[in-house]
Amino acid sequence: MDFELLKKLIVPAQTKIVLLIMDGLGGLPLDPGGKTELETAHTPNLDALAAQSDLGLSQPAGPGITVGSGPGHQAIFGYDPIEYEIGRGALEVLGVNFNLEPNDVAARGNFCTVDTDGIITDRRAGRLSTDISREMAAILRTIEVDGVEFFIEPIKEHRFAFVMRGEGLGAALSVSDPLKVGLKDLQVQALNPESEKAAQGINEFIGQTRILLAEKSPANMILLRGFAQLPSLPQYPEYFGLNPAAIAINGMYRGVSRLVGMTVLDVPENTIKSEFDTFEKYWDEYDYFFIHIKDTDTYGADGDFDGKVKVIEEVDKLMPQLLALNPDVVIISGDHSTPAAMKSHSWHPVPTLLYSKYVRPDGIAEFGERACARGNLGTVQAKDLILLALANAGRIKKYGA
Amino acid sequence: MDFELLKKLIVPAQTKIVLLIMDGLGGLPLDPGGKTELETAHTPNLDALAAQSDLGLSQPAGPGITVGSGPGHQAIFGYDPIEYEIGRGALEVLGVNFNLEPNDVAARGNFCTVDTDGIITDRRAGRLSTDISREMAAILRTIEVDGVEFFIEPIKEHRFAFVMRGEGLGAALSVSDPLKVGLKDLQVQALNPESEKAAQGINEFIGQTRILLAEKSPANMILLRGFAQLPSLPQYPEYFGLNPAAIAINGMYRGVSRLVGMTVLDVPENTIKSEFDTFEKYWDEYDYFFIHIKDTDTYGADGDFDGKVKVIEEVDKLMPQLLALNPDVVIISGDHSTPAAMKSHSWHPVPTLLYSKYVRPDGIAEFGERACARGNLGTVQAKDLILLALANAGRIKKYGA
Repeated sequence: MDFELLKKLIVPAQTKIVLLIMDGLGGLPLDPGGKTELETAHTPNLDALAAQSDLGLSQPAGPGITVGSGPGHQAIFGYDPIEYEIGRGALEVLGVNFNLEPNDVAARGNFCTVDTDGIITDRRAGRLSTDISREMAAILRTIEVDGVEFFIEPIKEHRFAFVMRGEGLGAALSVSDPLKVGLKDLQVQALNPESEKAAQGINEFIGQTRILLAEKSPANMILLRGFAQLPSLPQYPEYFGLNPAAIAINGMYRGVSRLVGMTVLDVPENTIKSEFDTFEKYWDEYDYFFIHIKDTDTYGADGDFDGKVKVIEEVDKLMPQLLALNPDVVIISGDHSTPAAMKSHSWHPVPTLLYSKYVRPDGIAEFGERACARGNLGTVQAKDLILLALANAGRIKKYGA
Repeated sequence: MDFELLKKLIVPAQTKIVLLIMDGLGGLPLDPGGKTELETAHTPNLDALAAQSDLGLSQPAGPGITVGSGPGHQAIFGYDPIEYEIGRGALEVLGVNFNLEPNDVAARGNFCTVDTDGIITDRRAGRLSTDISREMAAILRTIEVDGVEFFIEPIKEHRFAFVMRGEGLGAALSVSDPLKVGLKDLQVQALNPESEKAAQGINEFIGQTRILLAEKSPANMILLRGFAQLPSLPQYPEYFGLNPAAIAINGMYRGVSRLVGMTVLDVPENTIKSEFDTFEKYWDEYDYFFIHIKDTDTYGADGDFDGKVKVIEEVDKLMPQLLALNPDVVIISGDHSTPAAMKSHSWHPVPTLLYSKYVRPDGIAEFGERACARGNLGTVQAKDLILLALANAGRIKKYGA
């Protein structure tokens, strides 16, 4: 997308857009001739909406490419995930709700165990408990290095997010984590001149860690990898003219939403119902809502076909609550497919429904992979969905005379 | 495709991929309301496979563009044929199984007849016999020019392939062939400074030819056109992680296969059955097989609708032999359409079948143009088929987290 052109074409409107993402929505039949998870689910409300909608399939990153959740969400938000790559470290930090700033250098950290010669004997320090990990993080937070600031956020067990903040930092850095036991940790090296300062600061941090944790057990050292800075993504308010809100429970999705300029709303309870209630509560305050449902992906990744079906049915039951507010545009899709049959993300294009007053309904009263393959929308790139949403919301003016 | 990114995402697997190409497969009805060649053919095996497959249409070079066999095969191999152009001369040389090297300058050659003033009277020297052409080629091989080496490979009748090898050669060269009778042959001119040396060498070669053949009849001179060097194509083993084999009878298809890093297998007899037998024989040794069927195109180009139908039926009968080996991924398509109704290649998208355990079958138990137009795969770019093949073969890992 040419964001600068789009920005010029955007016009204000009183319309509201809802993007409902069931993570990993796309599926596969378990047996030849069978139905997918979405096709199996009893979804009278989604089917009724489908009859008034355009149906299609969306591709997160082109044919054959399987995406992670980060790139998958970039795509459904309108950004080519290959062009705007978010590094692993940055995703990890976004995932803990840390407010990562544009020039921060983020990394994935492990507490590990080293022997008296500094040789790594356990890259995960026996998967120490999250509580102990928190105590260890508190120790690391006492480290000071001139001219930079550090943030350490425990994630789970041995894992933590590492952030360095300061002027003139680059993230072209080699890892400290050799990725196997029996080796010492590596000196972090700058891979370009702009990253020299960051490399020095990180090596000093690691050096202090080595001393501070020397007497601890089992976690007496750290390993860092996946150094990254945030890509600069054109912001929703500025480029799309939207006042957008995100409703998501998991940190990473909240982080990616924040990255594109969405306000991330608090969801009181970890339930889909609570997400829909949050949507209803904030209805008047925003004109774009991203609602993220995680469990479809979780069950898909677990290979739990029936579990995924049930989550889809739960969402279906809540649809009247969403539709009662009369959104002008509703897009229902996924960030990628997660077929229970594969227990993993997959490359399969994702069933997608586009509802507005201005679609040409294809008369297909079913929301499912094969119904969508027959739909009017055809196969679209996920990054183009925002354009269709804005157009259907009367928010893009004519190009040229 | 971003080949460098793809290379990073490729993972090894024990899976096998088959790309079965019926050259010029796509067709048209002879009469309004009629069926195409593929729709007419009795193809119970292909139809049964279609029922378990994704169907779609593939475009070699985008809407409305008719491709030759060279670009058509580049596309089905994964390379944008517009971006990676192979010049005619290089294609001709590949076609005779000559092992063209990256900096060689290749051209298409004709033996011709000139009068005593050097005026061309017959551009094809009366289509002299291939045997005589061989003798003439032997004479040309005696020509020596300092600093370069020449290779002359007879093709058929008056046609031969010309190759010049040496340091610092470019192929931006004007033709020597004026393309009509009644004119003298043209001095070859360098169209950029890098091609100066090549121009000189070729003109010297032509000058010596003029003397050597002066007393011969009917072929007493040569004409060269289509000067070209090979494009550098990302190689299948390196970029796709495949150990690929090509099964094709005609030289050009063997040449293009070699160009992308495939091992070109010997096919003992010039029959489709022999190609399938070769596939079976080498099954254990490779993980990717390209099988090329030429006759669909030949009959299409001859306007022989029934002949093309029969070839398709012959392939259909052999399908059980191919499927008995349980390939993980099978793609059946063409490099372009060659409707008998048009007696030529055409721009029509090509019926395409993608079989694997991981497709969402569309339940269409027919392999034909209009069945494919209704299929789940939709309209795809031919160059993306390799991505779908690799994905379905479990050979592309997830992009991003």
